Amino acid sequence: MRFSELLSQLSEVTDASLRHLADDPELHGAAALDQAQADQLTFLEPGNALAAALAGSNAGAILLPARGDEAAALQQLALERGLAWIALADPRLAFAEALAALHPRRQPAAGIHPSAVVDPSAVVGMGSHLGPLVVIGANVQIGASCVLHPQVVLYEDVQIGDDCELHAGAVLHPGSRLGRGCVVHSNAVVGSEGFGFVPTANGWRKMPQTGQVVLEEGVEVGCGSTIDRPSVGETRIGAGTKIDNLVHIGHGVSTGKGCALAAQVGIAGGARLGNGVILAGQVGLANKAVMGDRAIASSKSGVHGEVAAGEVVSGYPAISNRLWLRSSAIFNKLPELAKALRQLEKQAKP
Amino acid sequence: MRFSELLSQLSEVTDASLRHLADDPELHGAAALDQAQADQLTFLEPGNALAAALAGSNAGAILLPARGDEAAALQQLALERGLAWIALADPRLAFAEALAALHPRRQPAAGIHPSAVVDPSAVVGMGSHLGPLVVIGANVQIGASCVLHPQVVLYEDVQIGDDCELHAGAVLHPGSRLGRGCVVHSNAVVGSEGFGFVPTANGWRKMPQTGQVVLEEGVEVGCGSTIDRPSVGETRIGAGTKIDNLVHIGHGVSTGKGCALAAQVGIAGGARLGNGVILAGQVGLANKAVMGDRAIASSKSGVHGEVAAGEVVSGYPAISNRLWLRSSAIFNKLPELAKALRQLEKQAKP
Amino acid sequence: MRFSELLSQLSEVTDASLRHLADDPELHGAAALDQAQADQLTFLEPGNALAAALAGSNAGAILLPARGDEAAALQQLALERGLAWIALADPRLAFAEALAALHPRRQPAAGIHPSAVVDPSAVVGMGSHLGPLVVIGANVQIGASCVLHPQVVLYEDVQIGDDCELHAGAVLHPGSRLGRGCVVHSNAVVGSEGFGFVPTANGWRKMPQTGQVVLEEGVEVGCGSTIDRPSVGETRIGAGTKIDNLVHIGHGVSTGKGCALAAQVGIAGGARLGNGVILAGQVGLANKAVMGDRAIASSKSGVHGEVAAGEVVSGYPAISNRLWLRSSAIFNKLPELAKALRQLEKQAKP
Repeated sequence: MRFSELLSQLSEVTDASLRHLADDPELHGAAALDQAQADQLTFLEPGNALAAALAGSNAGAILLPARGDEAAALQQLALERGLAWIALADPRLAFAEALAALHPRRQPAAGIHPSAVVDPSAVVGMGSHLGPLVVIGANVQIGASCVLHPQVVLYEDVQIGDDCELHAGAVLHPGSRLGRGCVVHSNAVVGSEGFGFVPTANGWRKMPQTGQVVLEEGVEVGCGSTIDRPSVGETRIGAGTKIDNLVHIGHGVSTGKGCALAAQVGIAGGARLGNGVILAGQVGLANKAVMGDRAIASSKSGVHGEVAAGEVVSGYPAISNRLWLRSSAIFNKLPELAKALRQLEKQAKP
Repeated sequence: MRFSELLSQLSEVTDASLRHLADDPELHGAAALDQAQADQLTFLEPGNALAAALAGSNAGAILLPARGDEAAALQQLALERGLAWIALADPRLAFAEALAALHPRRQPAAGIHPSAVVDPSAVVGMGSHLGPLVVIGANVQIGASCVLHPQVVLYEDVQIGDDCELHAGAVLHPGSRLGRGCVVHSNAVVGSEGFGFVPTANGWRKMPQTGQVVLEEGVEVGCGSTIDRPSVGETRIGAGTKIDNLVHIGHGVSTGKGCALAAQVGIAGGARLGNGVILAGQVGLANKAVMGDRAIASSKSGVHGEVAAGEVVSGYPAISNRLWLRSSAIFNKLPELAKALRQLEKQAKP
Repeated sequence: MRFSELLSQLSEVTDASLRHLADDPELHGAAALDQAQADQLTFLEPGNALAAALAGSNAGAILLPARGDEAAALQQLALERGLAWIALADPRLAFAEALAALHPRRQPAAGIHPSAVVDPSAVVGMGSHLGPLVVIGANVQIGASCVLHPQVVLYEDVQIGDDCELHAGAVLHPGSRLGRGCVVHSNAVVGSEGFGFVPTANGWRKMPQTGQVVLEEGVEVGCGSTIDRPSVGETRIGAGTKIDNLVHIGHGVSTGKGCALAAQVGIAGGARLGNGVILAGQVGLANKAVMGDRAIASSKSGVHGEVAAGEVVSGYPAISNRLWLRSSAIFNKLPELAKALRQLEKQAKP
């Protein structure tokens, strides 16, 4: 695809002064700035550490920032190097659009592979693809234009909206409901029994888990992640929430819209997240913890109780990020601090 | 099911003075107190934060505590609100029994789905169900009344007791042995090769893992959890132990009976747990760590060495929970503490 | 197998004075020193806590250390107990070789199980075994002598070298490339989409992940582990690197040769590891973190920024292991330290 044609597919339209077609290179893909070749697109964000590589770049074309202190200098460098370029408010977003244009998704052919095992009571929408060895239980409803890759298993009574994609090995347990445009990655498990046991004189007695999991529109669940259903009621993941790999979400958790949960996050039963909450890698939330809208927990932190909207917390038990940074810095000086204290004690002795 | 009929299925029998049938509502399910409708059962434990919701509850019936300061007041509130109720020593346990009565498990029909691939040397017990696309290796023995959901894989020489349930995508490796009444959830892996490598001049050389994993009676393994077999001998999980999702158990670990391991716990090779040990979420146990009977590690703690029976430990490296709480509180005041120290140093200077 | 025959299969040849055949026992397996029976082999390393058990061992034969303070005494004890023994420089390595000799791997018969679903464009090498219900996508290339256990799924354009073993439920996503002799354990996922989203006014927009994952020769990936592909370029795991269970490796990560990543490690996008890096259990590496050759992060540590070659780091944020040990020791004394400080402040008051 010619660079000029690619530009026509970007959502942001910029002034002709903010682009330069050079020889309008034919592009076959994309790469990082320091690796891109003459038939490849690349991009630079403001503050990107790779900026120094621009002067020697072999890329065919580049998406540059339209704003920021470096913008004019970067455009000048690209001109001198002979790269085709365009400057935009959000080069990263434009790069996402460009990648989608350069690598259009192959929608598998509609139809049910003969090796799939589909209960006769299931309903499959128009244009949906069920791959080899998919298993569909009783009373399942699948929307239109869905893609179920090989060996997906849907237990009974699952409902899936239009345009969902379920990757190989994903398992959806009874009664799970997915809104339109959800993606469940390989070997993720949605709607499994919550970890509920009642202590008795004869050991742990299982609390039946009769609730269900609801993924609202546009939710994405990473590989190997698990979202449990509760004993009663719902576990609910808000629209547009993105969940990375190997995340555990316990029974009865609810999240708002547009949250982002990084890899290996664990959320215990009954926790509640507002909208736009961000949990970094390996964060843990205790039972019934609450994170307000747009609150952030930095990596490896452990949250009990309640975090206010917009707050950033760190550490375990989690405290304000600012305090944690200061206390952590002093932690690294505890040997000196203890020594100084002993010195003072000696001096203070009569 | 009528409330009166439900009561007949609870294990605890209480005095007629501790119940009130009201209009003996027909119940179709259950819900939390603040969400339950007229055809739903709910429950309250002593100290439950939802107690305030009782006065406005729309539930049809409620299980209440028979003991505790609030018991009489709660019963009076339920009476005034017109709810059917019973008061019991353990309302949570009764709720578990009631849920099981209201949602009886559907035992799938006995038999082997025609798409399953079963080695002719395998033995399948009476009344067992093997779902679509299950794969059974050579010399496998499956007890009576087991349920193997779709796409379970049993490698050769696996033995499974009666009444086990294996969920979709679970994999059992060679020689694994499961006692009666075990449950293995979706995409869990039991009996895989332990992570054993010997450093050599040419890199890591694999230590063959010729041992096996034994799950005693009533063990439950969560979704995506992994239990490795050792080079020699056994990895053994004690009867009635419950393991949540995404837990890793290394080669040669042994646990006692009735342990509970929360999500994302990791136990390194050779660790030993006594009976009734509780590991909270994201806890890590180092190689050959030992936890005595009923010891508890709180969430995210990391245990080396030995924890005495009944002890509660926290933090990393784990120390007694009491000390950890006090030290953590002071950690949050380290900036002030360091400032005070500097102040004293100034004053002390001649 | 007779002990004498076993010895002929060990790579290290030692002097006749460093062995004793006794009655050259017939060995049928191996066990730990305190559990081994008369037809079993066992071993002892220098410093092994089990050494005390040698005097009462029922083992048939034992591999002993040739060097170290205890070597002569251990050999004498073995003689007195009547065990067959050999003393070697690396008894653990010899034990690995002996286990391999005592338990030769059964290579499944070459061929494609009739229930496998193999795209006609795929190429399968000589002597390879594709088990039941394996799914092979378009343009896949599989080398010679590979074993694909049941229900492995290879998406399109995957390439696998000779002598690879893929365990049940493993999933390889489009374009993944495996060198010779790789092992992917059950339910691991290689080449899945990286967790890349661009924040926009309308929520998270997916960054297409058009790159691929490369596992060099001899890489092993543990059960349930996930290795993501990047938006552009590669995620690359160096030759001979061993990855334990439930490890997450983000998009664009690269590791050197011979690294070892313990269970539940998480590596965020773009991190770079040198050769021989060791990450202990539950370690986390932040975005673009760098670990130099042979650097080590101890369990549960969290690494930002750069760790120099050969350095050992601990804690979160990770600092030098030596400092961390000292600071952690003082953390446990913070209550006393704070008390001493208050005392000094009192004294200092005029």
